[in-house]
Amino acid sequence: MSQEIKSFYPPLRTLMGPGPSDVHPRVLAAIAKPTIGHLDPAFQDLMEDIKSGLRYAFQTENSLTFPVSAPGSAGMEACFVNLVEPGDKVIIAQNGVFGVRMKENVVRCGGTAIVVEHDWGTAIDLQRVEGALKESPDTKVLAFVHAETSTGVLSDAQALCALAQQHDCLSIVDAVTSLGGVNVEVDSWGADAVYSGTQKCLSCPPGISPVTFSDRAAETVRNRTHPVGSWFLDLNLVMAYWGGDGGRTYHHTAPVNAMYGLHEALLMLQEEGLKLAHNRHSGIQKAFVSGIEAMGLTPLVDVDNRLPPLTTVCVPDGIDEAATRAHLLKTYNLEIGAGLGPLAGKVWRIGLMGHSARMENVLLCLTALEDALIRQQAKIEPGAANAAAIAMFDNFV
Amino acid sequence: MSQEIKSFYPPLRTLMGPGPSDVHPRVLAAIAKPTIGHLDPAFQDLMEDIKSGLRYAFQTENSLTFPVSAPGSAGMEACFVNLVEPGDKVIIAQNGVFGVRMKENVVRCGGTAIVVEHDWGTAIDLQRVEGALKESPDTKVLAFVHAETSTGVLSDAQALCALAQQHDCLSIVDAVTSLGGVNVEVDSWGADAVYSGTQKCLSCPPGISPVTFSDRAAETVRNRTHPVGSWFLDLNLVMAYWGGDGGRTYHHTAPVNAMYGLHEALLMLQEEGLKLAHNRHSGIQKAFVSGIEAMGLTPLVDVDNRLPPLTTVCVPDGIDEAATRAHLLKTYNLEIGAGLGPLAGKVWRIGLMGHSARMENVLLCLTALEDALIRQQAKIEPGAANAAAIAMFDNFV
Repeated sequence: MSQEIKSFYPPLRTLMGPGPSDVHPRVLAAIAKPTIGHLDPAFQDLMEDIKSGLRYAFQTENSLTFPVSAPGSAGMEACFVNLVEPGDKVIIAQNGVFGVRMKENVVRCGGTAIVVEHDWGTAIDLQRVEGALKESPDTKVLAFVHAETSTGVLSDAQALCALAQQHDCLSIVDAVTSLGGVNVEVDSWGADAVYSGTQKCLSCPPGISPVTFSDRAAETVRNRTHPVGSWFLDLNLVMAYWGGDGGRTYHHTAPVNAMYGLHEALLMLQEEGLKLAHNRHSGIQKAFVSGIEAMGLTPLVDVDNRLPPLTTVCVPDGIDEAATRAHLLKTYNLEIGAGLGPLAGKVWRIGLMGHSARMENVLLCLTALEDALIRQQAKIEPGAANAAAIAMFDNFV
Repeated sequence: MSQEIKSFYPPLRTLMGPGPSDVHPRVLAAIAKPTIGHLDPAFQDLMEDIKSGLRYAFQTENSLTFPVSAPGSAGMEACFVNLVEPGDKVIIAQNGVFGVRMKENVVRCGGTAIVVEHDWGTAIDLQRVEGALKESPDTKVLAFVHAETSTGVLSDAQALCALAQQHDCLSIVDAVTSLGGVNVEVDSWGADAVYSGTQKCLSCPPGISPVTFSDRAAETVRNRTHPVGSWFLDLNLVMAYWGGDGGRTYHHTAPVNAMYGLHEALLMLQEEGLKLAHNRHSGIQKAFVSGIEAMGLTPLVDVDNRLPPLTTVCVPDGIDEAATRAHLLKTYNLEIGAGLGPLAGKVWRIGLMGHSARMENVLLCLTALEDALIRQQAKIEPGAANAAAIAMFDNFV
């Protein structure tokens, strides 16, 4: 009926794609600890710690801060399915794949999506968003991606959240590739619903989506007139399990071991400190970009809008995008990412996220890319990229 | 802003509740292997193996057989949200918590739920279901729970699937607590959509939900007139990632390390063989029930409808249900489950699932229960329970 299977031994990769990032051995060791029950008192203590660690990462006091038991796409869906009711208007500032997915979510919730389209690789234009908000004063939600993983663009979440508040809208913010690597200030921005993923700057295995909801967002969910379309993601039910005010009502069985890993990763973030973690990500990217430029390559995104944990690098003329990635994977066990949508074949997406944001990785990637390009007849001075990266890095240490 | 957190060391429990069950050290070791990318060629091989291993467990050739990247409740939702469109009629044969949850799912999909209610602790009555099917000939789906985790009842899935076919309905089957521990014959039953969980008889950590869909079910999803309410669970999109006919389209980031664990658990099931695994579950339960009865306790469910992986035991008069569980947890690190709904306070739910279905566990649980009851003045002959369990077990080895 089916083929025989054998034990699986993964190849030992260095993960520098758009996520997952390299997982720290401490986190791998944590997820292998013996499983306990999801209603065990010891697990409930762990849940409180995780909520606390997530509040630290999100820089929020929101009581409704917890990890959704599924990947980032489910975190996105949790935000939309709870806040958008049939007939609601949602403005989506769209500048990449994840903005496209936001529109899909709104439509499936029965909402009306007003899309403010941007070229991929550009940041969200505040004036155009403000114009859309003025044109549709009955808009309920403004949704946007803080850190577009498909393009490597960082948009001004603070200003966008402020615009939402000025126009009496809720904000939904995608912070999948920013949380832990870039400043995400949920409370000072006044963001209403923010979701992230564990497999980017937190360097956990993929599978869990941290979310946080403002009191205003939680109130909106409680006051819905239609039931939430998803039972699994209904915050009214999930709150009773993750709520923490005394007893816990069984909702679903939490992914216990994945939570061990998230807990350890949040502890490591606390040990390093948010500010240092953010500085590390931006410093390491500067070193990497210096190296890339010394090799004659160009980042897609201008310096002001560049997302530190993820650099999109333009594929030069005469270079085979896919063959280059294949060479890196095969020869160096190094994973980098391809472009998506209109950027397919035109860029590589190179992540320096979480535990992957280290000089060792910068040097490996620059050397491997240099090798791949020289094999394709590119005129590159061997070693110049690493020298430039090291010189830039010296400025930061 | 938030309390300091410290590394977490879970207590070493023996898990004999309604799930999660004890995870085998081989599976814990597997999930701690280094993370690779969800689009890595090596991960794609792993995905094919997992699909193959799940087909073996489900006894099916269904090409649409894969693990949903979220817990069992999301697997349930995947079945309903894809197969039920607004206005569709769904008959739910309800005999416990998970049948109640099925109704919630139907309502949120915009469907009409016709509930055939049964007393908790009884199996589904085929005649009553047939009556309901005759009364509503335009019913699209018959949904029921094969193995009710809330009551410990096993219903006749084969006969129910046959009824669905006779009345030209699709069947949705909850096999969360049966897959791997009780015979689940998807193809020979002609079941259309079946979901399970990893944390029961497969003895993985919780977090993943194996599902399988017949060709007829897959065709129904493709021919929907309304978009699937959930983007994350839309089979039209998930199929493109898990499909396996050549290229894979990125949908969401799979929980890579959890998949390592599921793969190893499926390998272990293949090594033991389905038939032996089923016999082990039923033999171990018989030994356990002999012990329970020798102690003067009574199983809630009659022998013909008893679910081997989960025994509900009636709490005798004069015994404090919660205090007994607390004593077992505190003194013996032994987790057993409480009753739910109308059975709260009246039964314990004791799981002998997957790696937990071993004589060591039977003896520990009987001894610990005996101790707890004697402390509450129950008149029990010390040691009689274990002797009875061992005598019964001798019949099977």
